[in-house]
Amino acid sequence: MKQVEIIAVGNELLIGDVLDTNTNWICRRLTVMGAFVRRAVLVRDDEEAIANEIQGAISRGTDLIFTSGGLGPTDDDRTAAAVAKALNLPLVLNEEALKMVEQRYRELYEQGFVDSPEITPSRKKMAMLPEGTTPLFNSVGTAPGIWLETGSVIVVCLPGVPAELKAIFEQSLPPHLERVLGKGYYFERVFEATCRDESVLAPLLKHVADKHPSVYLKSKAQVFGEEVRITILLSASGSDKEKTERLLNEAIDDLVVALDPRGIVLVPVGER
Amino acid sequence: MKQVEIIAVGNELLIGDVLDTNTNWICRRLTVMGAFVRRAVLVRDDEEAIANEIQGAISRGTDLIFTSGGLGPTDDDRTAAAVAKALNLPLVLNEEALKMVEQRYRELYEQGFVDSPEITPSRKKMAMLPEGTTPLFNSVGTAPGIWLETGSVIVVCLPGVPAELKAIFEQSLPPHLERVLGKGYYFERVFEATCRDESVLAPLLKHVADKHPSVYLKSKAQVFGEEVRITILLSASGSDKEKTERLLNEAIDDLVVALDPRGIVLVPVGER
Repeated sequence: MKQVEIIAVGNELLIGDVLDTNTNWICRRLTVMGAFVRRAVLVRDDEEAIANEIQGAISRGTDLIFTSGGLGPTDDDRTAAAVAKALNLPLVLNEEALKMVEQRYRELYEQGFVDSPEITPSRKKMAMLPEGTTPLFNSVGTAPGIWLETGSVIVVCLPGVPAELKAIFEQSLPPHLERVLGKGYYFERVFEATCRDESVLAPLLKHVADKHPSVYLKSKAQVFGEEVRITILLSASGSDKEKTERLLNEAIDDLVVALDPRGIVLVPVGER
Repeated sequence: MKQVEIIAVGNELLIGDVLDTNTNWICRRLTVMGAFVRRAVLVRDDEEAIANEIQGAISRGTDLIFTSGGLGPTDDDRTAAAVAKALNLPLVLNEEALKMVEQRYRELYEQGFVDSPEITPSRKKMAMLPEGTTPLFNSVGTAPGIWLETGSVIVVCLPGVPAELKAIFEQSLPPHLERVLGKGYYFERVFEATCRDESVLAPLLKHVADKHPSVYLKSKAQVFGEEVRITILLSASGSDKEKTERLLNEAIDDLVVALDPRGIVLVPVGER
């Protein structure tokens, strides 16, 4: 399984002004494609801090690094520069990216959203990308995304505005990701347990988890008003569809058997 | 200003099953108290990974480390063990925490939520805490939080269930935090610019930001349907209330002057 790390960039995340929903969205998308997201980090608009995180991820043997935020025209948008610095690559004017930026400002000008289609230094900045970048067209905003493959790692940079991030991901990434991740399958089942006491479930879950190391098993307490409910999520991923699904079902069967003597039943909540 | 790092623990966050709202909530609370949140990370239920993040935060000179998640009764709740490991402290039965756990299970038993008030090994596990911990009473769930001051750093561990995290924070942390952070003031103003083009604003914002290094200034593009709107947030924090507010107002005045020649006006959105 390919190992992924995510870096979300933006002071607004760390002063609590903006809730980072991008990381969760990327985690979900990559998980169901069969990748393993090991770690995610939120950092400030600080070139050094972003570069340190990229180098840290590489040192941990990460295959793919995703970043969100910091690609825009303002001076505190430092992600492209940080990627270049971390990978020891020059930041160069990417002609293909420049064409994308020109196209978007022409469209926005024609739609009356901007006063001029001219490529000012602030607009040109968005096409200054690490050498070797394949730019990713941004149909919602203006800053192109980055797909950058080096010998050791693939770096994918997306804008921080969720609508832009999702549009680039959906429109440009599937063929790249399918090539890199291979065919991956992910199966997940969620149950609510007829037991509101996680401490009773704990040893029973451990028994099943130990027997099925390839299946992910997680109980979660949720508070609804005065009431606590316990949900149990089981998931498995792998490249062999039938085998992955079978391993998951075997774990579920064993969990049902383990809970039965305590009179605990699993009520299905969801399936993906 | 005290430097803070946050570690959110849980596989469910990295498979995208659960959106981490705790980090945002803690960021906001600490920022308005005058602390500086430098970085936040999401890691899996992995003792080694959590311990590495704690040691990394200490190596960066962090004053306070907050963790969320991983304090419960199940085998994959590893935060207390990871804190002990990272700080080279033994994990010991904390008598005060044990009393808290006993109290909560007695209450839950009386309310009919659990079948027995008995302190089983899974329940006792929640009172096994790093030596020197001041336990924090959990009035919503069962696992006590951790307040742990060492010579070099303060570690605060809270449960991952948001209602439990917030309850412990509100009920137990204010006196501790006020002592550590001192009196801190935070002022913030948010405006919408009558300009939908961040690339036009970029050089004007840079001019003001360079002139006011102690004020945080951030533009943010948001997509509403077809329309992009630009909000500008300015904030300042410090220990001198009047001075902090004055610095912020001076930056706002200069921003108004800088935008005026382009016919751009700031429309107030919020004030905190």
